[in-house]
Amino acid sequence: MSDYLQRMQKPRNVYVNGEPVSHLSRHPMFCGAIRFINRYYELQQQDPAVHLVNHEYAASLLIPRSIEDLRQKGRSYKAVADTSYGMLGRTPDFINSAIAAIASHAEALGRDQYCDYAHNARRYYDYCRENNLYVSHAAINPQVDRSRALSELRSPSAGVRVTHYDSNGITVSGAKMIATLTPVSDEVLIFNMPGLTENDKDFAIAFTLDVTDPNLRMLCRKTLTYPEHSPLDHPIANLFDEIDCLLLLDNVQVPWERVLIFRDVEKSNAFYDRTKARNHTGHQGIIRGQAKAELLTGVATRIAQTLGLDRFLHVQEKLGRMTTSLDLLKGAIQLAENAATIDDHGVCNPDISAIQAIRYHFPLWYKDMQQTIQSLCAGSMLSIPDAVTLGVLPPQQQDELFDPYRTALLNLGWDLTGDGFGQRQMVYEIYHAGDPLRIAAKHHQEYDKRDLLATLDQLLHSSCQERNHD
Amino acid sequence: MSDYLQRMQKPRNVYVNGEPVSHLSRHPMFCGAIRFINRYYELQQQDPAVHLVNHEYAASLLIPRSIEDLRQKGRSYKAVADTSYGMLGRTPDFINSAIAAIASHAEALGRDQYCDYAHNARRYYDYCRENNLYVSHAAINPQVDRSRALSELRSPSAGVRVTHYDSNGITVSGAKMIATLTPVSDEVLIFNMPGLTENDKDFAIAFTLDVTDPNLRMLCRKTLTYPEHSPLDHPIANLFDEIDCLLLLDNVQVPWERVLIFRDVEKSNAFYDRTKARNHTGHQGIIRGQAKAELLTGVATRIAQTLGLDRFLHVQEKLGRMTTSLDLLKGAIQLAENAATIDDHGVCNPDISAIQAIRYHFPLWYKDMQQTIQSLCAGSMLSIPDAVTLGVLPPQQQDELFDPYRTALLNLGWDLTGDGFGQRQMVYEIYHAGDPLRIAAKHHQEYDKRDLLATLDQLLHSSCQERNHD
Amino acid sequence: MSDYLQRMQKPRNVYVNGEPVSHLSRHPMFCGAIRFINRYYELQQQDPAVHLVNHEYAASLLIPRSIEDLRQKGRSYKAVADTSYGMLGRTPDFINSAIAAIASHAEALGRDQYCDYAHNARRYYDYCRENNLYVSHAAINPQVDRSRALSELRSPSAGVRVTHYDSNGITVSGAKMIATLTPVSDEVLIFNMPGLTENDKDFAIAFTLDVTDPNLRMLCRKTLTYPEHSPLDHPIANLFDEIDCLLLLDNVQVPWERVLIFRDVEKSNAFYDRTKARNHTGHQGIIRGQAKAELLTGVATRIAQTLGLDRFLHVQEKLGRMTTSLDLLKGAIQLAENAATIDDHGVCNPDISAIQAIRYHFPLWYKDMQQTIQSLCAGSMLSIPDAVTLGVLPPQQQDELFDPYRTALLNLGWDLTGDGFGQRQMVYEIYHAGDPLRIAAKHHQEYDKRDLLATLDQLLHSSCQERNHD
Amino acid sequence: MSDYLQRMQKPRNVYVNGEPVSHLSRHPMFCGAIRFINRYYELQQQDPAVHLVNHEYAASLLIPRSIEDLRQKGRSYKAVADTSYGMLGRTPDFINSAIAAIASHAEALGRDQYCDYAHNARRYYDYCRENNLYVSHAAINPQVDRSRALSELRSPSAGVRVTHYDSNGITVSGAKMIATLTPVSDEVLIFNMPGLTENDKDFAIAFTLDVTDPNLRMLCRKTLTYPEHSPLDHPIANLFDEIDCLLLLDNVQVPWERVLIFRDVEKSNAFYDRTKARNHTGHQGIIRGQAKAELLTGVATRIAQTLGLDRFLHVQEKLGRMTTSLDLLKGAIQLAENAATIDDHGVCNPDISAIQAIRYHFPLWYKDMQQTIQSLCAGSMLSIPDAVTLGVLPPQQQDELFDPYRTALLNLGWDLTGDGFGQRQMVYEIYHAGDPLRIAAKHHQEYDKRDLLATLDQLLHSSCQERNHD
Repeated sequence: MSDYLQRMQKPRNVYVNGEPVSHLSRHPMFCGAIRFINRYYELQQQDPAVHLVNHEYAASLLIPRSIEDLRQKGRSYKAVADTSYGMLGRTPDFINSAIAAIASHAEALGRDQYCDYAHNARRYYDYCRENNLYVSHAAINPQVDRSRALSELRSPSAGVRVTHYDSNGITVSGAKMIATLTPVSDEVLIFNMPGLTENDKDFAIAFTLDVTDPNLRMLCRKTLTYPEHSPLDHPIANLFDEIDCLLLLDNVQVPWERVLIFRDVEKSNAFYDRTKARNHTGHQGIIRGQAKAELLTGVATRIAQTLGLDRFLHVQEKLGRMTTSLDLLKGAIQLAENAATIDDHGVCNPDISAIQAIRYHFPLWYKDMQQTIQSLCAGSMLSIPDAVTLGVLPPQQQDELFDPYRTALLNLGWDLTGDGFGQRQMVYEIYHAGDPLRIAAKHHQEYDKRDLLATLDQLLHSSCQERNHD
Repeated sequence: MSDYLQRMQKPRNVYVNGEPVSHLSRHPMFCGAIRFINRYYELQQQDPAVHLVNHEYAASLLIPRSIEDLRQKGRSYKAVADTSYGMLGRTPDFINSAIAAIASHAEALGRDQYCDYAHNARRYYDYCRENNLYVSHAAINPQVDRSRALSELRSPSAGVRVTHYDSNGITVSGAKMIATLTPVSDEVLIFNMPGLTENDKDFAIAFTLDVTDPNLRMLCRKTLTYPEHSPLDHPIANLFDEIDCLLLLDNVQVPWERVLIFRDVEKSNAFYDRTKARNHTGHQGIIRGQAKAELLTGVATRIAQTLGLDRFLHVQEKLGRMTTSLDLLKGAIQLAENAATIDDHGVCNPDISAIQAIRYHFPLWYKDMQQTIQSLCAGSMLSIPDAVTLGVLPPQQQDELFDPYRTALLNLGWDLTGDGFGQRQMVYEIYHAGDPLRIAAKHHQEYDKRDLLATLDQLLHSSCQERNHD
Repeated sequence: MSDYLQRMQKPRNVYVNGEPVSHLSRHPMFCGAIRFINRYYELQQQDPAVHLVNHEYAASLLIPRSIEDLRQKGRSYKAVADTSYGMLGRTPDFINSAIAAIASHAEALGRDQYCDYAHNARRYYDYCRENNLYVSHAAINPQVDRSRALSELRSPSAGVRVTHYDSNGITVSGAKMIATLTPVSDEVLIFNMPGLTENDKDFAIAFTLDVTDPNLRMLCRKTLTYPEHSPLDHPIANLFDEIDCLLLLDNVQVPWERVLIFRDVEKSNAFYDRTKARNHTGHQGIIRGQAKAELLTGVATRIAQTLGLDRFLHVQEKLGRMTTSLDLLKGAIQLAENAATIDDHGVCNPDISAIQAIRYHFPLWYKDMQQTIQSLCAGSMLSIPDAVTLGVLPPQQQDELFDPYRTALLNLGWDLTGDGFGQRQMVYEIYHAGDPLRIAAKHHQEYDKRDLLATLDQLLHSSCQERNHD
Repeated sequence: MSDYLQRMQKPRNVYVNGEPVSHLSRHPMFCGAIRFINRYYELQQQDPAVHLVNHEYAASLLIPRSIEDLRQKGRSYKAVADTSYGMLGRTPDFINSAIAAIASHAEALGRDQYCDYAHNARRYYDYCRENNLYVSHAAINPQVDRSRALSELRSPSAGVRVTHYDSNGITVSGAKMIATLTPVSDEVLIFNMPGLTENDKDFAIAFTLDVTDPNLRMLCRKTLTYPEHSPLDHPIANLFDEIDCLLLLDNVQVPWERVLIFRDVEKSNAFYDRTKARNHTGHQGIIRGQAKAELLTGVATRIAQTLGLDRFLHVQEKLGRMTTSLDLLKGAIQLAENAATIDDHGVCNPDISAIQAIRYHFPLWYKDMQQTIQSLCAGSMLSIPDAVTLGVLPPQQQDELFDPYRTALLNLGWDLTGDGFGQRQMVYEIYHAGDPLRIAAKHHQEYDKRDLLATLDQLLHSSCQERNHD
């Protein structure tokens, strides 16, 4: 049994259906995810050249110094993503890449009278690296009323706030939503996305937590797997549920060495950007997205072949929209790596502009891919009897209609597009990196438009001048 | 217990998970649908002025002679649809409206050496009307290979075909897919959509069947309800599953008096059009769609209010797109009624052009409504712990986050957009009346374009002439 | 020569290419519009049953008391629109319908120490009616900086403001943009769209002006006609240019009897809504839109036939999208009339909700129609030699390529979609009734959602209650 | 005067308005294009490191042997495109890149009893290179009836066909449409796009022609420039008209050494693909597209700033959609170069999959960019008086409304989106590389889907197997 699987034996406060779950690895809602997360560790054994640095530590924790380093990390990301067809968004390499970024830009965290946060970040990196840990994260505050600031909300669960602090550390209470896979991780990094206002000081914190902390409760959403159904009925939904949960913190004690930001709104808002964490988690994310898009393209292609649809021009166009999108994705991933720059810390950061460009467009491509699959299957997805029923049918030779491959294929189509599994994947792609509307708005603001505008002004001034000479 | 509920006690060959279901009304997968279908019969008691003709028979079976008759049918359709928020597409009034249309245009079915099919149609109407029956239907052939004709396919389940006939009747075998609610109906009308080719003669049949026929098996798809979950977890998905199933006919004997079309490709392809069945089922369908669109508009509006989003201009635009679509829908329904024409049989048929116009656009509106709800909820839909867990939480006063209404609302948002329930509703809207691409193509072909083209030609000829005078 | 044509002889300050235009009716930029506007008056002679009330005055000035009155106005609007294929947006009936609405809701204008504005409105109606005048309008303030209020802008042309007033009247200066067809009208109604802020008092005015006023200058935009080209080259662009212009008012004196609103921000913002002017101009506008959509549908159909494209399914779908949109438009126009209500003043006002629903969707349909035509013609539109060149070609019998009808048809396709003429028509449809984004936002706000929300709440409360019983 | 300008003095049969044009470089319809084409030659003098190979011949004629060679060609393409903001699609480097590709894959042309076509191709390359010629092309057959083959059409202008051949060469007659810039080029390459059928043998030819051939007539479409207007009125439309014309060939004699394909349907259909011409013209095309997209992004950004719109979130999103699209474009261009492969001939060909992916998506981005500019300007584009009128206005200090820069900017917005100039640019982008629908369909067909499908099959077979073990 791997170290990770052993660590998963440790009890933690996970609630499902109002009951605490005692053995996660035997529970149908968690065993799939644990098995797939464990593949991340297995790959380190099977292919250390790709997944380890100097046979020592995880490639995702490599602090990249060159574009070639980024490419190595990229190869590891892709192989990890392929194990779950890109459907597990929060594999260990995701936050690992952030932990490495934060440690290598630790000065951004600074120090104050209580603590040297930069030092904390570097030590935490060492700790994760030595123990090959799986760190999850929780950043999103429950959506109570988006038109008001955190500090204006009455709900005690509006976010996580400091309620007390002394020389030992800080005490925090409150909630975070959409903590993905935290129940099956070792650690959780808690922080905020930008947008806090100056009155939100008590919320402006970042810290790490051992997920077995007794004052941390993880309330899971309803599961999206069907334990009573065979893999033939749900070829992918039943592989794993990338469970999301609501974290409730009830007077959790956090020692100072685990604190990264303390009551500092400016640092909190700049956290993800200044540490370059978003560049590196973004890099992992877009590569993982490729694995996902490849599965959907394969599924659509095969369904069109199987149902005799691929001879129609308008179907071919839809399939071609998928392959062309794949090419755009590959090109933009290359751009993110090739346009990477080495900063003052000697760290090579993927180009955030290319990453955010993908993050704006990928959900649109993904939605379109889903809809193509839905349109190819049309009603057929809804006419598949379950596997047990199929099994009791009298054997009808040559009856393509009951062919298990065809059945699995159409059921996969439903899992990916019609079932809760597929829709969660969609919602995940649209929102996991922030509201696309704001991603685009920020892309415009941060884009280097000087050359574009200089060219334009030259044209316009020439128009104005020629007029004067007329 | 109503007559309908009593009839539902009769055994029928319904398979779920490989097992025959003995008591449908006690089975979690069927009891909801049965309860909601029964409301159709209850309404006849509660509001006979709307739902009965002369206190005698169902309004849906009225053969309309005037626009006012159509409007009465419309009022009944709407009240029936409202009981299930339009989410039950195949309530008894749907095919009832077709039964009335077929009977009143029975000459289209003609007669031959075996039988007088027109006579059959009229008698069947009387039979349904006297017994206040619930007739479902099965028209779609399993999608084996769309690029080939039925008769070219090897699968014995490619459609339903005549294997034998004699003076007693015909013997049929094969399959139909997406037979919606047939398990909880009394009768099923089996026919084909247009598109048979001349070699498909054996498939070119239409007939009715008592669903308790011992040689008819109904294989259900996987259910979309969650019997283990409370209504708070799935406010609408758990109300009912509008179950779809695959019909398998194994040497079913059909007496001649139940046959409507017999080995006649031309009549089969023209069946739905020439009997005006599609005008009248279409009329019911667009009105039912209104009930559905109204629920989604209400949900989106309330979510925007609850999450404090309705102050943002771009959110208001999305909500306004919903209300403007509702208005277009209402207008087109009025057009379908107001532009109705009385044909040679003295029957007043809703305008098929207006109906098909809605059928092309409604799925687009519906998809857009779903996406608006998804975008408003974003991750919040995925952060709701289940009801039992919420119940065991320590009471936290003022914590809006755990408010049951808010929980039910977000869960309803998920049911309608993310869950299998909601996606099936979407697939239903897109395909239940045929491929939208072909609906539009046919709308163009059938549209009366003479005035448009005459106006155009006048303009063009005037351009050509003026040139000659230049 | 008609009265209108005679009035057009009167000099007015119209500038084109920096020069004042002396004789509009002989100028290539104006003669087309004048000819087509005159058809409005000719129709009154030719078909008085439709276009006159009691053989006395224009149907557009009828103050409607019933739905039947609205329908009569509608028939007249349609016949007028057909004369220019809906491409002249500002025919006299457009503002006439507003003049009638304002007069019949004149109390909304009230009175103050200077004047009885309600009385002014009624008298102005009588004046227009007796003289069968053509009133244009100018409402939009030049777009200087949309993020600031009018009163914060330094530009003296930011809007029209009061600079002085005494017992004789008011003195106004400033500018209005997009005054459409004002040069060829008799009168212009100047007012503001909603959105003035409390500091904008000097701008908060409404009044009428004789367009021959010596202190009013009309600066025309560049023309979109091609005087040097034959009608074969530009079958519709050369019929007329619906010229837009910038109005510059330089100390214009307006007597009190022509003032409708005077330094009253609240009344100015409510003007169009409270007088029901927008209901009635909207009614004219949606009917005119129908004429336009009919022309484009005819053009697309004919191009598909001529180029042998109408056998392709994906082309048929595009054409069907046009005919289905036409049906939705017709339905919503019927709804606007059928849902009209009679107000306290005994005036029957078309339903604004239906009108605004169309106004949100029509530009989308229109853009789609344009793009369909563009996609059918593709490069062919750009390969047509001009008519003179075609005329000098050696006669090539049987050469369909040089057939004048085909040439005119493709040139018409270009005029409607590629040329400045067609793009102005598009911009007109998108913006003439306000920003579509805000139209939708307001539709949501004003929509009667009570029933929708009550139904929803019933469902949610039932979910919450059932949970309690579990 | 440059060699190119001198060559442009040679008479050729160009028709405008039915008249032959004697001096192109003095004619307002051609002088702009000639001036901008000449910049291509000037750049060779100004920056030979980029634009010449070994200071000897044009970079566009370089036969690339490595990715670095491709990048050099790319840099030259970009600098050439920037001179016309990407708005001149058919600068000399476009077909030059094809001439180099055809010569280096000349075996594809083969030889027969009449001629060695491969030899012809190589010699033609030398000829163009030595004389630094400007070769245009004409490939598209007039769109007479797309549902029939060329040989079924009666029109003598349906395409270019061989009417006679002997030992001196071949005689050809007929027409080609959309020959862009041919009047101002030296040579024209005439060929067919794929799609000829076996009966079209007489049309299945490719050859080159000196554009001064007396039996070649070039009939120009109507111009899109406004000679009577100042650059302030039309800042870009008046710079040049990239004139398209219809070529009429009347018994043109083509010597064998100029023939590349002769009555060979298979070779004609494979021409562009097998010679890799489409890879290299595609490479130039996508880089030119970048220049265009950059101008539009600059224009939209500046308009939003100038009109005070860039503070609105929904406007920022639109602007961000432009910058994110630019990034996708850059990434895909890099992919086209980085994924280039060296073929059997030692030629390094850009990746056609990446190129076609861009060609499918670029028109969508471009259309979206145009619509963003239109939506920002809204009516303001239509309210700009012409420059002469502005010039005679009394000086109004501080009146931003009449600021020449603002005027030029809004007029540029109109040129690019509303004017015939801008719409032709759009049509060009959509169709110059073939119907996007077919581009996507072919992309799907040619895409290497083996890995995708293998991954999928593994998942499906595992689902089927696990079922067997249940």
